Amino acid sequence: MQLAKLTDINYLIAPDPKRAGLTRAVRGIDQSGQEADISVVEERPLTIFLNRREIVTAMTIGDYPELLALGFLRNQGMLQDDETVTSVDFDEELETVVVRTDTETDYEDKLNRKTRTSGCAVGTVFGDMMEGLADVSLPELQVKTSDLYALSSKINRTPSLYLEAGAIHGTVLCQADQPLVYMEDVGRHNAVDKVAGWMFQTGTSGADKVLYTTGRLTSEMVIKCALMGISALVSRSGFTAWGVEIANQVGLTLVGRMKGKRFVCLSGAERLIMDADLNSIADEPSKSARKGSRA
Amino acid sequence: MQLAKLTDINYLIAPDPKRAGLTRAVRGIDQSGQEADISVVEERPLTIFLNRREIVTAMTIGDYPELLALGFLRNQGMLQDDETVTSVDFDEELETVVVRTDTETDYEDKLNRKTRTSGCAVGTVFGDMMEGLADVSLPELQVKTSDLYALSSKINRTPSLYLEAGAIHGTVLCQADQPLVYMEDVGRHNAVDKVAGWMFQTGTSGADKVLYTTGRLTSEMVIKCALMGISALVSRSGFTAWGVEIANQVGLTLVGRMKGKRFVCLSGAERLIMDADLNSIADEPSKSARKGSRA
Repeated sequence: MQLAKLTDINYLIAPDPKRAGLTRAVRGIDQSGQEADISVVEERPLTIFLNRREIVTAMTIGDYPELLALGFLRNQGMLQDDETVTSVDFDEELETVVVRTDTETDYEDKLNRKTRTSGCAVGTVFGDMMEGLADVSLPELQVKTSDLYALSSKINRTPSLYLEAGAIHGTVLCQADQPLVYMEDVGRHNAVDKVAGWMFQTGTSGADKVLYTTGRLTSEMVIKCALMGISALVSRSGFTAWGVEIANQVGLTLVGRMKGKRFVCLSGAERLIMDADLNSIADEPSKSARKGSRA
Repeated sequence: MQLAKLTDINYLIAPDPKRAGLTRAVRGIDQSGQEADISVVEERPLTIFLNRREIVTAMTIGDYPELLALGFLRNQGMLQDDETVTSVDFDEELETVVVRTDTETDYEDKLNRKTRTSGCAVGTVFGDMMEGLADVSLPELQVKTSDLYALSSKINRTPSLYLEAGAIHGTVLCQADQPLVYMEDVGRHNAVDKVAGWMFQTGTSGADKVLYTTGRLTSEMVIKCALMGISALVSRSGFTAWGVEIANQVGLTLVGRMKGKRFVCLSGAERLIMDADLNSIADEPSKSARKGSRA
């Protein structure tokens, strides 16, 4: 497989697989009993605070902790558009990120309420996520299949932690045929939250964007994508029925199992512009196949 | 690929990919614009209660809800060996499982304490899982590589939801060269929790078992495996550095990237008996390759 030249793609943020601290060489043996040094990804706890309140501990590879915290809080509906973030402080030693806002947010109230009503409110966090969806109005973005093939090819040839060490997920914010921000993490929800954090920090709209993920198209991924205002979600991997159902409800275009010239669209097919010349698209050669479609 | 005859394998619990309610046919289009009915896995919320307390809402495929609840509570250290479960009630309409025990458990106290100290205790749930590990004493089980190859071959040829609809993870409890209990779920943590629930319900020891998973060998998977008293964990997929570190600490044999004749052992190599004749093991043909090594 030929790796892409990054200068051809113009990433705003690209993976940095050689960055210190993201992988570690571990000594082991292979099937022949030979000693081998294997490059494996790191995985560290990061505890996210909103103002004075501890929200969650995420297991993460450790890059972009501030963006992960911002994106997580955004996607949980704990940071609204009109809120002012006064500081985001990462403490490497304590493994914490503290996000401070200029007001006490609704969500802190909600957490309090949840604590008090615990035992009768079923699935509060999940309920909250579905709640936010009712206000989402996604643009009716037309998506060219030629762009999807171009994205898929560029992303799969981009040097990444995945190609370096495996066992990791990628999520890429894209516009037309250009991948813009490519985040990786041990959990696919973290990778997408880091993208959301970048969009929040830079004030970037999701209206003309497409989100590409290496992971499965589950309800969680579809909900996050919709909350980010992005109306098209693409993956090499498969679907869950509920993911498809939510995508149909909110008007999100859902393309999965995209490998080589193959794909399936299970929501929003009417917004696809089928302009690709399939004869010009290579089938995915098994040798260069990315390893994962599961996940 | 030739699917295995189940009668040759003697599963105690095998996947039942044709069971109603686990998959759904969804109409979509493929890359040629042709309408296609795609089989996708279901994904439903299941809220787990311990006595009067709501513990968590899991996103699950929906089979074996009672085992999922029992296994989750076990692996979170909320159900101890000496505790008597008086009832496990699944309500399909409410999407709840209520596990009742004859005593109020420590864990309910812990949850209370966490609520009260919220904001200063960092990563309580995670902290608790590591806490349980200190008491774990794993048997020094010798593992034959010939058994690992036999397991891998049998499991990969077993008819499953994965082969039927993709986008799902499998975890298999094994003994020597025999897979015994093969659970699948949209989340790998659910699949392994269902196995733990089965072990708890049947009083099965992990001492002579090997656990096989299609997912990555992360800290979470290694911790769950150790808490189940199983000293060997095998996967087609890769590692995280912390997963390897914990495995080394607790004396767990960790074998990953196992495909065809290839594998890597990053912890406990001294307990592997390298008895397999590599010449007799086929490389994994790319056509029959399971899709996932990620995840």
